[in-house]
Amino acid sequence: MAQNARLHGFGILVLCVLSYPAMTTAQQPILNLMPFPANVQAGTGNLAVDSSFSVAFTGYSEPRLERAGERFLKQLARQTALPLSLRPAQTAKATLVIQTDHASKEIQEVGEDESYILDVSTASARLRASTPLGTMHGLETFLQLVDVSANGFAAPVVTIQDQPRFPWRGLMIDSARHFIPLDVIRRNIDGMEAVKLNVFHWHLSENQGFRAESKKYPKLHELGSDALYYTQDEIRDLVAYARDRGIRVVPEFDMPGHSTAWFVGHPELASGKGPYAIERKWGIFDPAMDPTNEKVYKFLDDLIGEMARVFPDHYFHIGGDEVNGKEWDANPKIQAFMKAHGIKNNEALQAHFSGRVQKLVTKHGKTVIGWDEVLVDGVPKDIVIQSWRGQASLAKAAKQGYRGILSNGYYLDLGWSAARHYAVDPMTGDAADLSPHEKQLILGGESCMWAEYVSPENVDSRIWPRNAAIAERFWSPQDLRDPASMYARLDFVSSRLEWLGLTHRSVTRHMLQRLAGSASRAEFAALRTLADVIEPVKDYTREQTAPAEPTSATPMNRVVDAVPLESDAGRRFGELVDQFVAVSCHDPAAEARLRVQLAAWRDNDTMLQPLVQRSFLVQEVAGRSQDLAALGSAGLAALDTIAKGQPAADSWKAQQLASIDAAKKPKAQLLLIPASAVQKLVETAAAGGACTSTKP
Amino acid sequence: MAQNARLHGFGILVLCVLSYPAMTTAQQPILNLMPFPANVQAGTGNLAVDSSFSVAFTGYSEPRLERAGERFLKQLARQTALPLSLRPAQTAKATLVIQTDHASKEIQEVGEDESYILDVSTASARLRASTPLGTMHGLETFLQLVDVSANGFAAPVVTIQDQPRFPWRGLMIDSARHFIPLDVIRRNIDGMEAVKLNVFHWHLSENQGFRAESKKYPKLHELGSDALYYTQDEIRDLVAYARDRGIRVVPEFDMPGHSTAWFVGHPELASGKGPYAIERKWGIFDPAMDPTNEKVYKFLDDLIGEMARVFPDHYFHIGGDEVNGKEWDANPKIQAFMKAHGIKNNEALQAHFSGRVQKLVTKHGKTVIGWDEVLVDGVPKDIVIQSWRGQASLAKAAKQGYRGILSNGYYLDLGWSAARHYAVDPMTGDAADLSPHEKQLILGGESCMWAEYVSPENVDSRIWPRNAAIAERFWSPQDLRDPASMYARLDFVSSRLEWLGLTHRSVTRHMLQRLAGSASRAEFAALRTLADVIEPVKDYTREQTAPAEPTSATPMNRVVDAVPLESDAGRRFGELVDQFVAVSCHDPAAEARLRVQLAAWRDNDTMLQPLVQRSFLVQEVAGRSQDLAALGSAGLAALDTIAKGQPAADSWKAQQLASIDAAKKPKAQLLLIPASAVQKLVETAAAGGACTSTKP
Repeated sequence: MAQNARLHGFGILVLCVLSYPAMTTAQQPILNLMPFPANVQAGTGNLAVDSSFSVAFTGYSEPRLERAGERFLKQLARQTALPLSLRPAQTAKATLVIQTDHASKEIQEVGEDESYILDVSTASARLRASTPLGTMHGLETFLQLVDVSANGFAAPVVTIQDQPRFPWRGLMIDSARHFIPLDVIRRNIDGMEAVKLNVFHWHLSENQGFRAESKKYPKLHELGSDALYYTQDEIRDLVAYARDRGIRVVPEFDMPGHSTAWFVGHPELASGKGPYAIERKWGIFDPAMDPTNEKVYKFLDDLIGEMARVFPDHYFHIGGDEVNGKEWDANPKIQAFMKAHGIKNNEALQAHFSGRVQKLVTKHGKTVIGWDEVLVDGVPKDIVIQSWRGQASLAKAAKQGYRGILSNGYYLDLGWSAARHYAVDPMTGDAADLSPHEKQLILGGESCMWAEYVSPENVDSRIWPRNAAIAERFWSPQDLRDPASMYARLDFVSSRLEWLGLTHRSVTRHMLQRLAGSASRAEFAALRTLADVIEPVKDYTREQTAPAEPTSATPMNRVVDAVPLESDAGRRFGELVDQFVAVSCHDPAAEARLRVQLAAWRDNDTMLQPLVQRSFLVQEVAGRSQDLAALGSAGLAALDTIAKGQPAADSWKAQQLASIDAAKKPKAQLLLIPASAVQKLVETAAAGGACTSTKP
Repeated sequence: MAQNARLHGFGILVLCVLSYPAMTTAQQPILNLMPFPANVQAGTGNLAVDSSFSVAFTGYSEPRLERAGERFLKQLARQTALPLSLRPAQTAKATLVIQTDHASKEIQEVGEDESYILDVSTASARLRASTPLGTMHGLETFLQLVDVSANGFAAPVVTIQDQPRFPWRGLMIDSARHFIPLDVIRRNIDGMEAVKLNVFHWHLSENQGFRAESKKYPKLHELGSDALYYTQDEIRDLVAYARDRGIRVVPEFDMPGHSTAWFVGHPELASGKGPYAIERKWGIFDPAMDPTNEKVYKFLDDLIGEMARVFPDHYFHIGGDEVNGKEWDANPKIQAFMKAHGIKNNEALQAHFSGRVQKLVTKHGKTVIGWDEVLVDGVPKDIVIQSWRGQASLAKAAKQGYRGILSNGYYLDLGWSAARHYAVDPMTGDAADLSPHEKQLILGGESCMWAEYVSPENVDSRIWPRNAAIAERFWSPQDLRDPASMYARLDFVSSRLEWLGLTHRSVTRHMLQRLAGSASRAEFAALRTLADVIEPVKDYTREQTAPAEPTSATPMNRVVDAVPLESDAGRRFGELVDQFVAVSCHDPAAEARLRVQLAAWRDNDTMLQPLVQRSFLVQEVAGRSQDLAALGSAGLAALDTIAKGQPAADSWKAQQLASIDAAKKPKAQLLLIPASAVQKLVETAAAGGACTSTKP
């Protein structure tokens, strides 16, 4: 522990350097690692990575490790285009010698040893880990270390001792609302491996689809999926694919609500009269299973038993969220049952249901995980709560002895910035006040990719790169929280993720080309300039502002579907304005850069006009383009005023703020990100005194 | 015919409009078709393409047509993101009604009817073709017609009557020198289908590799391929994949030269003593089969028989090129054989060999195709000559009654511009003087992707988009040859090809990122600016200027591997300079654009410097970056001088031309494309009189 503490201190020192990229030189390597390791001791010099690079395994051996080694070499070859031999080398000759002590559990468990130590010298590298899980994490760290250098590809000399902060680090993908094909799932699992996540939570059933083949009850997927489902063979392959990457697969079959698709083939499970059809809209719907019907439990016994065999993980997610109770209220038999059994309200009725289902899950050898709602009086202490409600909910559960994971704050579909997700910590708020023992009950967290507005085409861009920042929150020390350092490393990791086949960056241009059709290069550049500084509306606003009621058949080909959820250019412009204002507007270089950017925005709308006329999809953002032009003009006017060094007239300020207010309003379900920064310039100009044009 | 002529005349009218994009308006649709159809009659209005779009088949039906329809709808859905139903509709209700008259041949033949008529009205569309081949071509034309419009996706009202100019329109891929995985081959076949090519010529054996599994002689691929070969099952799948797209697959097993890889497992076939190893270098090598050894013919009889069953096409390519004869000269037994049989020289010896092999190919039911060298006295008239020598060679063959296809002028690896390939026509030169009957013997042409400097990663970018221009040469009327129209349409088609999964555009950024590592955005933008205006050296210069002797293990990760073979930005700058000079330098807007570009180049080197210091791969182009800066300065100085309206001093001119001469020299195997255009500015400035600053 003492050594860890010392190394840890050094790690923070490196981080401080990372926060000030200007201070780094060729001698001071930037370690573009994400998640950043627990302990990093940087050295001097580099280990060359050339065509002779080789890997040797010692210690414990298993086929999974061999595959991991081959995958590592293939990825290294992809990153460098070096013709690397995939065959393991002799220990004495290998560039990277890997020692694994012993096997991990046959079925990966929560809290297994995932630590590793990676030592890179100028001559060779050594990776040591207790289990294959640690080995695989260490290999990913090595891949992130390798970069182009003045003398070839190389990894910096460094000693890394690393282990995760939390044992449960997940990504949930909802492939029920929109079906996500397996190749897309697989490349996202590759991305998870790259950032050391270890749980793929697969949301498989919803009102809009039942996506897993059931041999016992085939009408579930046959009638409930529009023929878009995963066969059991495919699922087993996917589970094996994930296990090969140190990733557990936790299936979720959401019940008793969120289950309309089940009822298309099996209306007898429902509390209403039916018939039921696959739901095409989004929201919370009335259909719910009948908790008073013994046939429901028989059915679930069979289904859970079947799925428990398909998914080897020890945990089984039963959902349990958002039952509105309307079908229960309307069903006299259910009302009579409640009266007869002294069940006072729907919450208690759901508790009754959850209790029964929990017993079935236990019977089939699994532990229940469910959303907050499953935590009711008397539920056994071994269940795990996944909290969409937040740290207070988790803390309350922990005080009662329940384990939990946090998802509140990590909903990827809400369109938050990476920094905002990054600032959310499972151990803050009420959780910070827990006893050490209670704190151990908080296992980690999961980001959630809910799929109302996600297609197979753009889902990568909705998950990445932001998910890498969340992965760092789950892995790295709690005191690592500087957003500037995070963004600097995220930019690099994001480009590295594309080497895995993820399309989160390339898809934007691709989708914008669809919008632009046969646009000229100038027109397309204008569209790109606008697209670079807009973001989809946040939280649940998209639903509220939809031009027509969205359904699962709504084409996702609009600008709001194409642009990333976070605008890098918008963020950087804001940073530049902050810097400019912070130095009392005395930085001519910064002012020149601001002017170039603002003038480009002012003039962009004219260049976009031909495309606005020609494309209905660009037409939709015509207003946003005008607003951006107005922001450009307002910003330039503010800089002119600042240059004069006199406070501006109130009328001028009011006029500018009015146009900025218009720009701040969402249009076409899009936000214009530079609006706040331009407002800061206008307010600075209006204040006059804050910035003068006299040189310091 | 009369009607065709009328339509054809109209087609040319449309083309004239295409040549002047400025004249087009919203009412005058640009038809971004490539290859451009034989006859186009444009109408007014659009056919809406929305979620209700459907297809119905009438007339002749076969599973291949159903698959083509489904593929068409999937591609249309990809282009538009519309949720299209893949099920065929009823004829009365379908948006697009397809009528195919009858089957094509079970094994696709040269010269089958590939024509189609496509009628698009504001209400619906009709596609009629004699055979499925025509139907599939028509579907590709329809996909190119669909574009975004002011009111949604739409296809313009038009009547197209179309058929190919040549019956043999091929692309050869050498997957022997560098192995090209099947997924890459498949997406290139998708690209071929999109531009109506109909022959995939698969170059499968070379000194560097024997790439087809032989069950009869497994040592061929086992010892001759580094385990990089196609199994017979994979080949059959690929042939079926191509047939589904109206594309024949012609295998090439090159003999008696270019065959070192055969001899690794079968040294007894060779004329030398051996032992032989897979060749790692490029060039023409000594090993050749022994034409005097009866065992060689027994072996080839077996192998050709085996491969003739794997490849159903009626043609079988035996190569035959570039035998240097050294092994023959050095072998006393061969010399004795020649003496005994009155064979005077190596050419005659090869003729003897070709004659024997030709009989074997005939015995197995196939027709020989081979490179120019196979045409020797007495060869049967049914063979086909593939000419790397040129039109004169083809014309000579035609006069003797031999059929031929042209590849001279279509070698994609030589790095020519699309316009230069486009200007090559099989029917020019000596071929223009042939009689009508002789002309019919010229079947078409093939572009050739020789693979010394091609990796699976960048091969798409070496083939496309230039190959689309060659495809137009093979399909469209001979008088269609305006490069401006070609480039305008090529730009659109190139972006469309990316929807098929081809990576010719995206790979450049991807590979530049490898070179740039953790570059800042500004540094990366500077690298991109340089990369945009450089091209790999042309013809065979790359071999001659290699920094170290290249081998098949040389990493292809340099700038020369990453940048496209043709610089769009360089070409456009040249066009802008031409326009500027043509109007006596009186266009202030053009001058302003030139100045922006030149200033950006002048300043780019400074921005690139940090990356030059940090990346050995960028370091290699440091000189090119300096040269670009010098071009920027020289161009700006020329514009300043032109603005003065006085001839410049000779010393000034000499100084500028010296720096331009330096820029014109290849460095790092790269050409700096704007050098000639900047020279034109300097010479214009020096002449003084040609351009004056007085306004007209």
